[in-house]
Amino acid sequence: MTRLQLIQQIKRQQSYLCIGLDTDLSKIPIHLQHRPNAVVEFNKAIIDATKDFCVSYKINTAFYEAIGAKGWDAMEETVGYIPATHLKIADAKRGDIGNTSSQYARAFFETLQFDAITVAPYMGEDSIRPFLEYDNKWTIVLGLTSNKGAADFELLKTADAIPVYEKVITTVAKWGSINNLMFVTGATKAEEFTHIRELVPDHFLLVPGVGFQGGSLAEVSKYGMSKDCGLLVNASRAIIYAGETESFAAEAAAVAHQYQVEMASYLQGI
Amino acid sequence: MTRLQLIQQIKRQQSYLCIGLDTDLSKIPIHLQHRPNAVVEFNKAIIDATKDFCVSYKINTAFYEAIGAKGWDAMEETVGYIPATHLKIADAKRGDIGNTSSQYARAFFETLQFDAITVAPYMGEDSIRPFLEYDNKWTIVLGLTSNKGAADFELLKTADAIPVYEKVITTVAKWGSINNLMFVTGATKAEEFTHIRELVPDHFLLVPGVGFQGGSLAEVSKYGMSKDCGLLVNASRAIIYAGETESFAAEAAAVAHQYQVEMASYLQGI
Repeated sequence: MTRLQLIQQIKRQQSYLCIGLDTDLSKIPIHLQHRPNAVVEFNKAIIDATKDFCVSYKINTAFYEAIGAKGWDAMEETVGYIPATHLKIADAKRGDIGNTSSQYARAFFETLQFDAITVAPYMGEDSIRPFLEYDNKWTIVLGLTSNKGAADFELLKTADAIPVYEKVITTVAKWGSINNLMFVTGATKAEEFTHIRELVPDHFLLVPGVGFQGGSLAEVSKYGMSKDCGLLVNASRAIIYAGETESFAAEAAAVAHQYQVEMASYLQGI
Repeated sequence: MTRLQLIQQIKRQQSYLCIGLDTDLSKIPIHLQHRPNAVVEFNKAIIDATKDFCVSYKINTAFYEAIGAKGWDAMEETVGYIPATHLKIADAKRGDIGNTSSQYARAFFETLQFDAITVAPYMGEDSIRPFLEYDNKWTIVLGLTSNKGAADFELLKTADAIPVYEKVITTVAKWGSINNLMFVTGATKAEEFTHIRELVPDHFLLVPGVGFQGGSLAEVSKYGMSKDCGLLVNASRAIIYAGETESFAAEAAAVAHQYQVEMASYLQGI
């Protein structure tokens, strides 16, 4: 998916919502848990019910790997079910030496046909380049994350008084362009969005943590939005586990719709 | 596997060799490539031929993920075939917020029954803790890697003139112990081993990059060895792709044996 297609989809849907399919078998409605293909059945119902309110789905690979090869099958079936209009993100946090990152790129961009993958920057340029070599695919590099542990290394000050995460963003930005590179930017640090926007005024930012991690959609939108929107705001548990009964999909849709309506109000003029 | 068991195995085998099963279908002998379960067949032959010369096998998840769900099956079958005497490492470089890292820990320690996993430190403490919670399992955190990209962020100087990788090692060392924590330490930087040994005198170090990445086993052993050995030196392509014909397993064994003989000479007194 190109940048233009993504922006058009945001305008059409009046939404920059990404829904995280962090599907945990033990948390889905009890009536589904014992079905042979429970995870896929749940995901398909969520996708059908919410696709009008979002522009992207993010699949957290950990939840699928936890159940082994059948989890990998469920991931494949789920990604294949997401409409082509929606950006398909593998939230995989991969990254390794060049020839290994090439294999990860192949796994997620070719075998699984995702549009985007999250990548960890610790190992530097040759760990990220192989992902950037694909046309019309997106590499979403961890910048500043929303968890407590971000303080340990991401916020560590470097010799020129700039935090590590900022070095990561400015350095990685040189390896790609606004057409193939995004950054993960934690929603619990809305005051830092202004600063990040100075560093990368036009890149898309993937914002996790709105919902159960405590971020505020209003603040993120106020400080993070660019002239082309430039935001994908993710919610996972707040939407997919909104209901616990047979009406779970309708309840998920209702929450997703709430997000969409709020987002439409921030998108005025876009 | 406990630290004591690992040390005993090193003494018994007179080896601290880890063999990396970075099995790429396009690189295995042609006579195997079209067999239905080629990757597993290749891995089993390599394991049978080399197990007397090493103490560990490391499975690089990227190469299995690249072929989808059947790759995950191949990984499961391979790890199940590794003898219980050998440390089974998932070279997965995972790491995410706490509840996601818990799922990765479950995937690799429970579902796949690995003894160890490599973990990326960027996201900090809550991304690493879930792996450390397992008894008799090992978390192998990226310290200083052997690739060119290590210069981008790992070697970046922090405000107190210490490189990021050193902050990672000293900080992460406080979260675990020598019984459940190791560090990945790049073999192309042998002069830095002395310094890393001052920081973590007793931790095991997993050393990639001896072989095709250009490290020197003699130097790594001289500067990196602790009183209990404290080293696992990995070689992947140099061993598994030593031969291209039907005698590939014997050729792999011959190279592994060379490593073992050289290692035995450095292990004198251990």
